[in-house]
Amino acid sequence: MEKILVAQSGGPTSAINATLAGVINYAKRNNFEIIGGLYGISGILNRNFIDLSKKIKNDCDLETLKITPSSALGSCRYKLNNSDLEKILQIFKEENIKYFIYIGGNDSMDTVDKLSEYFLENNEDIYCIGAPKTIDNDLVLTDHTPGFGSAAKFVADSIYKVARDIDVYDYKTITIVEIMGRESGFLTASAMIPKFITNMGADFIILSEDIFDYNKLKKLIDKTFEKKPNILIAVSEGIKYEDGTYVSEDKTKVDNFGHTKIEQVGTKLKEMLLKDYNLPIRSIELSILQRASIQSKVDIEESFSIGEFAAKSVVNCNTSKMVSIERLSDDPYEVKLNLVDVSKVANKVKKVEKKYIDNDYTLNKKFLNYLLPLIQGEPEIKYKNGLPVYFDLK
Amino acid sequence: MEKILVAQSGGPTSAINATLAGVINYAKRNNFEIIGGLYGISGILNRNFIDLSKKIKNDCDLETLKITPSSALGSCRYKLNNSDLEKILQIFKEENIKYFIYIGGNDSMDTVDKLSEYFLENNEDIYCIGAPKTIDNDLVLTDHTPGFGSAAKFVADSIYKVARDIDVYDYKTITIVEIMGRESGFLTASAMIPKFITNMGADFIILSEDIFDYNKLKKLIDKTFEKKPNILIAVSEGIKYEDGTYVSEDKTKVDNFGHTKIEQVGTKLKEMLLKDYNLPIRSIELSILQRASIQSKVDIEESFSIGEFAAKSVVNCNTSKMVSIERLSDDPYEVKLNLVDVSKVANKVKKVEKKYIDNDYTLNKKFLNYLLPLIQGEPEIKYKNGLPVYFDLK
Repeated sequence: MEKILVAQSGGPTSAINATLAGVINYAKRNNFEIIGGLYGISGILNRNFIDLSKKIKNDCDLETLKITPSSALGSCRYKLNNSDLEKILQIFKEENIKYFIYIGGNDSMDTVDKLSEYFLENNEDIYCIGAPKTIDNDLVLTDHTPGFGSAAKFVADSIYKVARDIDVYDYKTITIVEIMGRESGFLTASAMIPKFITNMGADFIILSEDIFDYNKLKKLIDKTFEKKPNILIAVSEGIKYEDGTYVSEDKTKVDNFGHTKIEQVGTKLKEMLLKDYNLPIRSIELSILQRASIQSKVDIEESFSIGEFAAKSVVNCNTSKMVSIERLSDDPYEVKLNLVDVSKVANKVKKVEKKYIDNDYTLNKKFLNYLLPLIQGEPEIKYKNGLPVYFDLK
Repeated sequence: MEKILVAQSGGPTSAINATLAGVINYAKRNNFEIIGGLYGISGILNRNFIDLSKKIKNDCDLETLKITPSSALGSCRYKLNNSDLEKILQIFKEENIKYFIYIGGNDSMDTVDKLSEYFLENNEDIYCIGAPKTIDNDLVLTDHTPGFGSAAKFVADSIYKVARDIDVYDYKTITIVEIMGRESGFLTASAMIPKFITNMGADFIILSEDIFDYNKLKKLIDKTFEKKPNILIAVSEGIKYEDGTYVSEDKTKVDNFGHTKIEQVGTKLKEMLLKDYNLPIRSIELSILQRASIQSKVDIEESFSIGEFAAKSVVNCNTSKMVSIERLSDDPYEVKLNLVDVSKVANKVKKVEKKYIDNDYTLNKKFLNYLLPLIQGEPEIKYKNGLPVYFDLK
């Protein structure tokens, strides 16, 4: 039996295990040995493997894994160096691993790129495919990324619920909701959904792609207060001033990758507004729940198909590729899976196109045609003792 | 037809409209006229009424209202003064209102108390009953409060998801989750559930009832790091030092009721920990979603029954009472509804009993017997376009 290795990397999503389940499903049904690498490529370097054929005993296990949020194999944030490549080749040969599928975002695609190029250069009979995932939806050459639909649904749902909550009082309030997205505002843009669907939602949506202009926002707020008492603002964590500096940047703090630390932009905006408005102003950060909570059935099913497609592609000796989603139609929603060169995806960032962004911190309806199909449907979750039932691999 | 007036007050919950639906259901099936006061007692003072018999056309409307979070009639935070009492009597007489049900927390029970005493003193044929609600579970003379079970379920669910999320990396991290509750830690205590049920959850739970001792916490953290890399701490927003000052208090800010402003205790704790630990430390505030999101079916059904019981009690000329829940059995879970004197509930605060709180910032299993029945079951929610379908009354 030929052996497939699968691992997960980067930040978790609610759909990342659906892709894993798809890989396992294809492998088991087509008689491949399937093992999992724990804690991504850094775990693989330590030969931290588990036998997934044994862990997943039946379809029931597979269905539970499919709806389990957060990377069931664990994750890492590790950039490969050249000596790692040699070491991984040695491990793959010793462990008899012929096929490798890495489920991840930008950085993980860089890993797939480096590994597959190294195997090609050395004429090794080993093949690598990337399966995309990220709630940020910031990968190029794919209509959208697995995991985004579920996160977008959580954002839309939360904005709707917050909008209903703040609507209970008849006096003026301002509420800010801070949403993940350092360079790409796709997730924050999802805050547009409830307003279009129910007429209750975010009044203003400020994206990482926007130029943040406090005076412009203030004028828009004042105008809106003439019509209604409560104002809801959705902001990307990565909003910037015209000169490109982050609104929330703390220049004294730099992370391991050299990125300036940005945090609590909602609190920063609240402090600015409190100087001009003597009102109850609240800032809410959706935080980790964005990537671990509500799921879109469309997203879960697509993520599963992507896992199956990645497995099928890699055992057919495709390498140095990433699975991508091509949208054929918005309504009825229809997509097709393709392979794209992983080198063209690695380390690049997709942004919300300017044509969708209006000048008054709102998005136009055309963007809804893109977003809405991705949040449809609710997967069936089993509960025990009041908590959802998930699958543990580690 | 005799007329019942119903209104809602204080902070919203996920179950407050289930109680409203119960009141409407009883009224319609027993041929009472039923009107709603918008924006609580302050709206009633402005004769801001709607005809609920007309708004709720059928059982389908009633079922949708039942699972709609946030006060559908709007809310207020208003303390009655003596001239208001006279004005309300006049309005009730002119509008021919004989029965009044007020759905709310501590302050609302004070309103029910004052109004019913005033009507009694003046020998008026008008009757007032309070229906409890609060996510804080801090009302006395009732086993628990409607709305608490749903909020507790959201907290348990969120803690479980956060615990799974932080478990994906194999390096040390500390995560703090800040939970609502200024004086009562019931909601924070719900963070105990996932650890007991799934073995993944909060390592430490610091309640408003606890004395916050940073050095004690630090020792517990160090000991836990010997066993596992990621630590999850749940804290009540109202945690206090031994001398009674809030950990997060900002003495420069005092609200309209004279309460010192407390906010972002999670961030405060994070800053303390960052001085001792050079690790990724994150603070998450569950915020408004605690009272507007996930629902417990037990809570929704109980809240509905309480609405029906309140209506039945008031039209039988009970007055100056609040509906209370008496627990008959934990397993099988069984309760009975009673009436208690509203004057004995108003302005009092129930706290988590000391016998349930262990000395190492954890709660013992006995408290689970109390909590667990309250978070059982998931009400059926309809979705349209990817968002839940709710009912609008205003």
